[in-house]
Formats: sequence, structure tokens, C-alpha cells
Amino acid sequence: MHKDSAGNNPPHKVVIVGGGFGGLYAAKALSQPNVDVTLIDKRNFHLFQPLLYQVATGTLSPADISSPLRAVLSKSKNTKVLLGEVNDINPKLQQVMVGGEEISYDTLILATGAKHSYFGKDDWETFAPGLKTVEDAIEMRRRIFMAFEAAEKETDPEKRRAWLTFVIVGGGPTGVELAGAIAEIAYQTVKEDFRNINTSEARILLLEGMDRVLPPFAQELSQEAEASLQRLGVIVRTKTLVTNIANDIVTLKVGDEVEEIATKTVLWGAGVQASPLGKLLSEKIDAQCDRAGRVIVEEDLSIKGHSNIFIIGDLAHYAHQTGKPLPGVAPVAMQQGQYVAKLIQAKLANKPSPKFNYIDKGSLAVIGRNSAVVDLGFIKLTGFLAWLIWLFIHIYFLIEFDNKLVVMIQWGWNYITRNRGARLITGREIQEVKDTDGYYTPTIKPVANS
Amino acid sequence: MHKDSAGNNPPHKVVIVGGGFGGLYAAKALSQPNVDVTLIDKRNFHLFQPLLYQVATGTLSPADISSPLRAVLSKSKNTKVLLGEVNDINPKLQQVMVGGEEISYDTLILATGAKHSYFGKDDWETFAPGLKTVEDAIEMRRRIFMAFEAAEKETDPEKRRAWLTFVIVGGGPTGVELAGAIAEIAYQTVKEDFRNINTSEARILLLEGMDRVLPPFAQELSQEAEASLQRLGVIVRTKTLVTNIANDIVTLKVGDEVEEIATKTVLWGAGVQASPLGKLLSEKIDAQCDRAGRVIVEEDLSIKGHSNIFIIGDLAHYAHQTGKPLPGVAPVAMQQGQYVAKLIQAKLANKPSPKFNYIDKGSLAVIGRNSAVVDLGFIKLTGFLAWLIWLFIHIYFLIEFDNKLVVMIQWGWNYITRNRGARLITGREIQEVKDTDGYYTPTIKPVANS
Repeated sequence: MHKDSAGNNPPHKVVIVGGGFGGLYAAKALSQPNVDVTLIDKRNFHLFQPLLYQVATGTLSPADISSPLRAVLSKSKNTKVLLGEVNDINPKLQQVMVGGEEISYDTLILATGAKHSYFGKDDWETFAPGLKTVEDAIEMRRRIFMAFEAAEKETDPEKRRAWLTFVIVGGGPTGVELAGAIAEIAYQTVKEDFRNINTSEARILLLEGMDRVLPPFAQELSQEAEASLQRLGVIVRTKTLVTNIANDIVTLKVGDEVEEIATKTVLWGAGVQASPLGKLLSEKIDAQCDRAGRVIVEEDLSIKGHSNIFIIGDLAHYAHQTGKPLPGVAPVAMQQGQYVAKLIQAKLANKPSPKFNYIDKGSLAVIGRNSAVVDLGFIKLTGFLAWLIWLFIHIYFLIEFDNKLVVMIQWGWNYITRNRGARLITGREIQEVKDTDGYYTPTIKPVANS
Repeated sequence: MHKDSAGNNPPHKVVIVGGGFGGLYAAKALSQPNVDVTLIDKRNFHLFQPLLYQVATGTLSPADISSPLRAVLSKSKNTKVLLGEVNDINPKLQQVMVGGEEISYDTLILATGAKHSYFGKDDWETFAPGLKTVEDAIEMRRRIFMAFEAAEKETDPEKRRAWLTFVIVGGGPTGVELAGAIAEIAYQTVKEDFRNINTSEARILLLEGMDRVLPPFAQELSQEAEASLQRLGVIVRTKTLVTNIANDIVTLKVGDEVEEIATKTVLWGAGVQASPLGKLLSEKIDAQCDRAGRVIVEEDLSIKGHSNIFIIGDLAHYAHQTGKPLPGVAPVAMQQGQYVAKLIQAKLANKPSPKFNYIDKGSLAVIGRNSAVVDLGFIKLTGFLAWLIWLFIHIYFLIEFDNKLVVMIQWGWNYITRNRGARLITGREIQEVKDTDGYYTPTIKPVANS
């Protein structure tokens, strides 16, 4: 550590890249005057991603699950928030580059997460948007509610059927939660709202390549989840591979059979790929990455040979505990953020520090309005009680008090009335055209200035 | 009226174009089985526009002030909602065209409102966005909060000053409300959030061409509003004309003096222009329009020579009552919608119907967190009591119960903590570039799929 001109130790400079669960929990745990923290994020807010599917399905608004980073860290006077994107790293000079500006660090924490990935089939993205950002959620919401509007106008029964067919790819928590919510929209929320269509004719298909939904959960919970989805009206198709998505057709492979589904709405809840920062690290400092682009880290979450660069959250591949990498979920990122913060303080105090140890408090996934599956390790729960646990844990972890209140009210309102107040179709203006085959498509043009 | 093949009177067909205050209140008042209502709107939701500035300034979310039209009219089984834009009218065949589809009417109600206008200077829109849609509000919010972010990064004092200068053009209710809210953001909400800038150095200028703000209000209320704005820190400039807006410079004319203000954020609250439907009517059926594009209507709100076409709300120019056209505010539109609904029922029952008579219950405008001006005719109020009245009236008229609750909570939260949870910068990704003169600009690119 360098001394300044007066001979004092200047504060230890920590740069954190990414304000998700990992980065934010690290920053909050580092609110001490002996460190000087800079949190860099592309966005000016922390997003509570576990509830993003509720924005996509019209229950919550983006701001209900977002907290301005500056507001959350306002009282941490040692912490600076910088809006920008890191495009280079220089470990020799201990600097990151943010849009032409050099930011120096003594310790660097990288927590830039992951985005959805199409296993190399990037052209699928146009037809099957994923769910990682607020903009993704608004786009999904637009597509879901626009499909009912288009069906209401469509007179050709076959095309109407395609508008009323929703295909969700991937049976993980996101896919399960989306499928459950869309079933409730079609069979309950909008049931009385249309005059030409019967929304109970809508088909919601959840496709999963493995032999059961929620593969990381215990077998019996997967079964219970599948049964709950079926009770809601979701058609669950396991052992089903998607081989193509194009021109309103999803092509499946089930065993040796090939099948085609005509649909106007495909939602992607399958693969994820780590942030491009992983690739940059492998080029710059020879960091090792796995196939999903995650950086393989040491027992203290640092990169081999770079004891002052830490990787946390979805960008990290940490397999020291169970032999398998830890899952990309919020609790892992939170614990890693807090661990690295403690580790930095221990190092500054010349104290020894243990290796990272993830304490798995369980997994949860919600299925519709009043059912969930919860695996707390020592106990497995399903149904209404599981749903209550799911509810309170999510309210508890929402960062801000007004968000907690508003989310509770919206859930209460949705629970009692089955209404979804946030089902706005926004972001693009509607422009109606007949496309080449005469197929009615409510196409879209970007709205000026938005 | 035509009889159907069985000799019965088929229901009278009413087509309403526009789901704002006028159209929605007409539709709700026409929930009777002897009429068959079709409500056509470009958007799938009713927007409570009087609170749109609170979305633009980060207090509320779009869904908090929006109600899905289908949900609001779900119980009106005689009413169909159609998502689309009317692009032609054929009064002879009694049809409107919606994207190639012909919709027949017996009575037509046009309530397509107004949008902001730049007095022919359409190139100003890029620099000075207005506030009519949800997308406009999101864009304003992005610009306001992005300006502080850019100032935080800027090292040149002159450029930083331009980022911290906010110019609001137009001293009507929208301009006054925006200016008050931005002053509170700069001097209170984000005061503790930045490390490089002192947000109390921000300048908020409100420009008005007339000799006082809120020109339609009583003189003493204008004075009180101006004093309240000044207490909040807003620089109010009356008798000030904007002659140009370009390249981060607003050019003013004050008397004979020309003045230039360097600013990165200009918000437009000045002119409005009626929806293009007015022009279409003047071409198609020779309807008379005023300079703002509003259709001049008869004493019963119909168009001269077309007793089954009614114009209500901001699209109507109704001067029979006071000699001046009624103002473009929500109460006028609501009363006109309800009046036309009654008129249609009276006609169907062969009863006489009086001419439209607007009952002015007063005007209100809010200035910041706890002050307002209220003119109820028999009494004029300012300050906290006026603010409470403003508050309850707005809560009362919000359509849905969950919106009422959520808006109250957000206001309570904002009142107690001065925090604004909805200050998200969304809709575009940040991309940092140096532009030609080396001026730092956080430019923006559209986000894929949003």
C-alpha cells in the first residue's frame, strides 16, 4: 500500500463492477472509512431479478423491484457510484477502463452476472426473447398481452390458434414461473375481457429437455411442480428438445419424433451465458473459463495468480465445495459479496481468512397465484404454505421499504381480484400491417424518443 | 334505425374513438343493453394524464396511473374494446376504418385528444421532449436523471454547469409541476447521492411568455404559485419568449434583449395541437377547425350538419358557453363524455335534450411536495391545505382501487423520506462517446427488443 505525501495510509481502493446482488452486498458490507469503494454499473438501479417475471406478466412495475443504487448507498460516504460500462482491464497498472476513463484499484471485484444465451442459435432471440433486464420484461409483457389483442381481431381460426399458443422454453424456475403466470392470465385475469375469443382456449406449453421440470430440485418437488402447473392448465412437455425457432414455428424433437408448433409467442427461459467480462479476463490475464463463460475461481473467489481480483455471483464458477459449480442464484451472489468484503477487511488487518463456504438455505419456485415448491434441505414443502414462505422471503429481501409495501399491495390485489394492473402494452407503437402471406401481424415500430 | 331479419330493433351502435377521460367516461355511461359500444384506442390502457409528470420525475410508475381499458370495461358486456388506430372516416356509409377493417356506427364519438406542439418548429422536439404519453414520461425521466449522472462525471466546470441546468418551457400546470418536482429532486432527493457534484448548484429555469405563470388562474394564485416556486429554488422567467432550441442552447427573447442559455436538458410544457383526426374531419366532412386543430362543435357537441358525430375532450372547440373555448382539462372531457352518453339515450327515447353546460368545479396545480394552488371559484386556496385538496381529488379520480393505494403509499414515502423510488434510467442503453468537440455525452442507443 502506498503512503500519500503526508505519510498517511490512503484508504484501500476497492472497485466493484456490477450492482446486482453480489456487487451491492459487497459494497454495503464495505461501508467503512478505511476503504474507498467505487461501484460501477451500466444501470442506475439494482434490479431484484427473482421477481422480474412478475413485471413480464403484468403484476408489478419495474420500479417496484428496482432500487436506485445511489439511494441505497447514499449513506455510505466512502462509496462512489459510477454509471458506465467497463470495457478493459489492466491488472499490471491495476486499472479498469470505463468509457475512456481510467479507474485505479487496489482490489477489484467483478460481479457482472450473466445474460440469457441461445446455445449459439443467436437468431432465435428475435422470436424468443429472454428475461434478464427491465427492457426484456417490458418486451415480454408487450408480446403476451398483444397476443390476446391480435387473437381478438383475427378471424382465421388457425391463425387465431397460433396467437393463443404460448411456448415457454426451459423448465427452470423462470420457465415454471412464467408458464404459471401466463396460465392465470389466460384462464382467469382476462377471461371476461374479450368479446370475440374465448381465452380459455389458449394453450400454454412449457418445454424442458430433461425428464422433469426444476431439475436442480428434489425429485418429488419437481413432480409436485408439474402437477401444480397442470392444475393451472399448463401443458408440460419434458424430454423435449427445441431444434428450431423461426417464422412462428417452434420445431421440437421428442425422442426420434419431430414436431412443429405454430405459435406467435415464444419466451426463452433456457440457457444463460456469463457476461463478456469473463472472456476479456481469459484474454487479458489468462483466467480459465468454463463453457458458459464463467471464470473458474480459487477457494477465496480470487483468480489464480491474481489475489486482488475477485469474481462473485453468476460470473463465478466455484466448484470447491461440492465438485459442481454453485448455481447462479441470488443467495450465492449475496454470500459471495459479503464474504469478499470480509476477506478484504481481514487482509487489511493482516488476519487470516477462511475459504468461501456457501450455506445453502434452500431453493424455492412459485407456481401461480397460491402454490410454490420450497426445499429447505431439512424439510420440503409444496402448496399454499410453500407459497407463503416464498412470499415472505421475497418481501424480506426487497431492498427498500416502499417497494416492500407496494409489492404486498399489488400481490394482495392480484390475490383477491386476480387482476393485473400493470398489463400495459408500452415501448412501441402499434402499427397494423398485413404481411406477405396476408397473415395479420400487429407489427411494431419504435416510438420516437423512447 | 334498421330492423333485423326478425323485425327487432338491433342495438344502437356507438363507436367511441379514444380511451382518455372523454371516451372512457362516455363508454362507462353507455353500459346499457340497448346500445352496442365499441371503444377504439391505440393503447390498451387509460392513462391518468394529470399525474404523468410524477412518472417523468420518478415518483410513480406508469402502471400506477394506468388502467387496462378491458379491465375497466370488463363488466360492460355491451362494450367491445378494439386496439387500433382510426385512419379514415366515411360519414356516408357510417363507418370508420381501423387498419383495413371497417367498423360501422350509428353514432360516432371522437375523443382522440391532443399532443404537444412546437408552433411549427418540429425540430425542437429532439431537444425538448413534451409530456403526453407513457413513453414521453420515461424519456423525460431518463433525461432528468441522466443529466445528474453526466454532471457527476464531467470535469469541465462549464459543461458540468450545462448538465446541471434544466430549462422548462411553458408556465402552465405541466411546466409548473415539472419545475417544482425537478427542484425537489436536485435540492432534496439526490442531494446526498453524488460525490463529485453539489446538486444544490443545479439551476431550474421555468420560462413563460405571458406576464405570469398559470395564466388561466386568478392573478393572486399565479403570484402565489410563482412565490412557491421561488421558495423551492426555481428561477421563474415570465415575459420570456423562446426563439430557438438547438445544440444545447436555448435562445430567449426578453423584450428586445436576446439571451442564450447553455443547457443539456430542455423540457417542453408549452403548446398543444389537437389530434390529426380534426384535420381528417375538415377534409372529409368540411368540419371547421380552429388554429390548434380542434373541431368547432355545436351546442350539443356534434359537428354542424352531422348530428350523429360528436367531438369531446381536447379535440373539441366548444365556445358556446363563455365565448372562449373550454380548456383542455380532464373535468371538461369527463363531463362531455357523460353528456353525450345521456344525449344518445335521450334521442333513443325520443326525449328532448339540453345543450352541453360545463360546470367548472375549479382548477388546481401543485407546486412541489406540499404546496398547491386551488381555485374553486367561490374560494381560492394556496399552500398546504390546497395541496391536501389536490391530493384527495387526484386519489379520488384514479380509476382503480389498487392504483389509489399504491399512489398514496408512494406519495407518503416521498413525503416522509423525500425519496423517489421510480427514478430508473431505462429504455435505452448507455453508450459513452466523445463527440466531435470532445464534449462528453452519454449518448444512447436503442436497447434491442424494447
